[in-house]
Amino acid sequence: MKKDYVRPLDLKHGRIDMNHGAGGRASMQLIEEVFARAFDNPHLREGDDGASLPVPPEALAGGRLVTACDGHIVSPLFFPGGDIGCLSVHGTINDVAMMGARPLWLTASFILEEGFPLADLVRIVDSMAAASREAGVPVVAGDTKVVAQGQGDGCFIATTGIGVAAPDVRPSGRNARPGDVVIVSGTIGDHGVAVLSQRESLSFETEVRSDTAALHGLVDAMLKAVPAAAIRTLRDPTRGGLGTTLNEIARQSDVGMRVQEAAIPIEPQVEAACELLGLDVLYIANEGKLVAVVAPEAAERVLAAMHAHPLGRRAARIGEVVADDHRFIRMQTAFGGERIVDWLSGEPLPRIC
Amino acid sequence: MKKDYVRPLDLKHGRIDMNHGAGGRASMQLIEEVFARAFDNPHLREGDDGASLPVPPEALAGGRLVTACDGHIVSPLFFPGGDIGCLSVHGTINDVAMMGARPLWLTASFILEEGFPLADLVRIVDSMAAASREAGVPVVAGDTKVVAQGQGDGCFIATTGIGVAAPDVRPSGRNARPGDVVIVSGTIGDHGVAVLSQRESLSFETEVRSDTAALHGLVDAMLKAVPAAAIRTLRDPTRGGLGTTLNEIARQSDVGMRVQEAAIPIEPQVEAACELLGLDVLYIANEGKLVAVVAPEAAERVLAAMHAHPLGRRAARIGEVVADDHRFIRMQTAFGGERIVDWLSGEPLPRIC
Repeated sequence: MKKDYVRPLDLKHGRIDMNHGAGGRASMQLIEEVFARAFDNPHLREGDDGASLPVPPEALAGGRLVTACDGHIVSPLFFPGGDIGCLSVHGTINDVAMMGARPLWLTASFILEEGFPLADLVRIVDSMAAASREAGVPVVAGDTKVVAQGQGDGCFIATTGIGVAAPDVRPSGRNARPGDVVIVSGTIGDHGVAVLSQRESLSFETEVRSDTAALHGLVDAMLKAVPAAAIRTLRDPTRGGLGTTLNEIARQSDVGMRVQEAAIPIEPQVEAACELLGLDVLYIANEGKLVAVVAPEAAERVLAAMHAHPLGRRAARIGEVVADDHRFIRMQTAFGGERIVDWLSGEPLPRIC
Repeated sequence: MKKDYVRPLDLKHGRIDMNHGAGGRASMQLIEEVFARAFDNPHLREGDDGASLPVPPEALAGGRLVTACDGHIVSPLFFPGGDIGCLSVHGTINDVAMMGARPLWLTASFILEEGFPLADLVRIVDSMAAASREAGVPVVAGDTKVVAQGQGDGCFIATTGIGVAAPDVRPSGRNARPGDVVIVSGTIGDHGVAVLSQRESLSFETEVRSDTAALHGLVDAMLKAVPAAAIRTLRDPTRGGLGTTLNEIARQSDVGMRVQEAAIPIEPQVEAACELLGLDVLYIANEGKLVAVVAPEAAERVLAAMHAHPLGRRAARIGEVVADDHRFIRMQTAFGGERIVDWLSGEPLPRIC
């Protein structure tokens, strides 16, 4: 299309104003010079109100479609190892992947606050675009709204993912059975500690970086290693951390779990930061880890496949599913005692993702 | 699943607190007692991170998938004729329908502000659920985040729609050709005036109600009336109004348009309100109207099909597409003169949808 703006946006010193959300020429300029430039793909180039997408081969071969969505409000917007942009891509790709599906497309809704620096928006959008390209999951439709100063907080991003799964692949939180093995794909707490380290109120020194990453490649490797039914449950322990995710699965499947604290991989720096802040690492968010519940006879092969993948090198068997009417997560502590890993209680960690 | 909360949420006097966004037990209670209760369907009942969906028959028969997304930040949240809840359902259904697709599923991301009354949330969610049921388009996946007081504004909702279109149905803003007929499905400006009438700063008396409605039934009736290729373009003139939508289509298709002001349906009350507020009705948002560009030989049949549908009773032919390198929208005014309907200029109307 012919460009017909008086002058290009000032991407260095410009700011979002209410016109960018009004649907007129300023909105279109923002879309073209920031979003379309970064996300460029044939679907967006059509310039229509939505995207027209081919039917994926797995769908034609008896598979099913999968969708998941996630809102992102992380504060601060930039943190060691990532930012709200790549996070909003990884988070939703992971939700789709945890359904056993191959993620194919993303949609993205931005809610921007008046006065938000265009330079920050460009940085966020470029990070999203890079994450989306690396994952092979394009952003095919989008929307931008603007609220007045004080009615938002810089930049919120809601993404929805669409994927497709083979007919026999149906991992679910409802499928855990007594005797199954509980696996975590790597160290826990990295994302939450990285974000908290940037909060003004909590400023502390650490070199911990967010683990934010797209896990669909790891899931694919796991699914190729064993029969699909052997992978009962996949879930990414984001908000609420590992402790919450284990409780969710136990509740959905009406089982309990026994977990060995010493088996849970944790970076020493994360452990130190949690001690300093008085936080329990079990409830700290992760953005590039998954919990898998697998059939006991498949556990070794799943672990081997995970260890061979860059995002699963530190995967570990951390416990097993047991019959328990109370659906308790019992953890054998490093000191030989036992504690119940309850649902998150006490102060929540706001805006961690 | 067994209920295991100490007491149910106080849906009359309770408020959103930070715990509702922390991903733990309070989040789960909010999901179960507010969202799952209202949206109840087999996909949500699975309780997983995403929804598992059947492949629709049109997709198996050579069709294509369609997706569109929309963020909703309308202020105030409740207005004559609707609220942010039903709006967030209709808006995204309409974006999918404007691609010629049958909308099948929705995802919904909520960004709530700490302190937001649960009673208002219930009212919004119930309205969404009613709109979704009426349209036959269930909400199959969702997410809720909470920001601290002053970092948001009550309730924002981002929705994504997924649909499916038959292989030959491909309306696009790029398809308008000189000689084509421009149709609008009914009166313009109703939604914007209804919302503005509730703004404290603008308080004025009117009985205008928002036109918010799902248009996929109307689109279906239009597509059944004529060969698919005769419907070149479908677009809903939301933010930016009819004036902006006509300019968008002209720009995408590299054409101009000639429009007759007297042919555009407008409620007298809307016209009066616009005069009072000094607003041009051509730029006022609609949420239950569409613009269609159709082949000249099909125009009468399309109009007849629209007139037979409850949402198209006042459909009218308002102009025609012309060759024009400037891509101007020229309007013959009611007084016999001519004006260029330019892109929206001047003050935007913030948070109208």
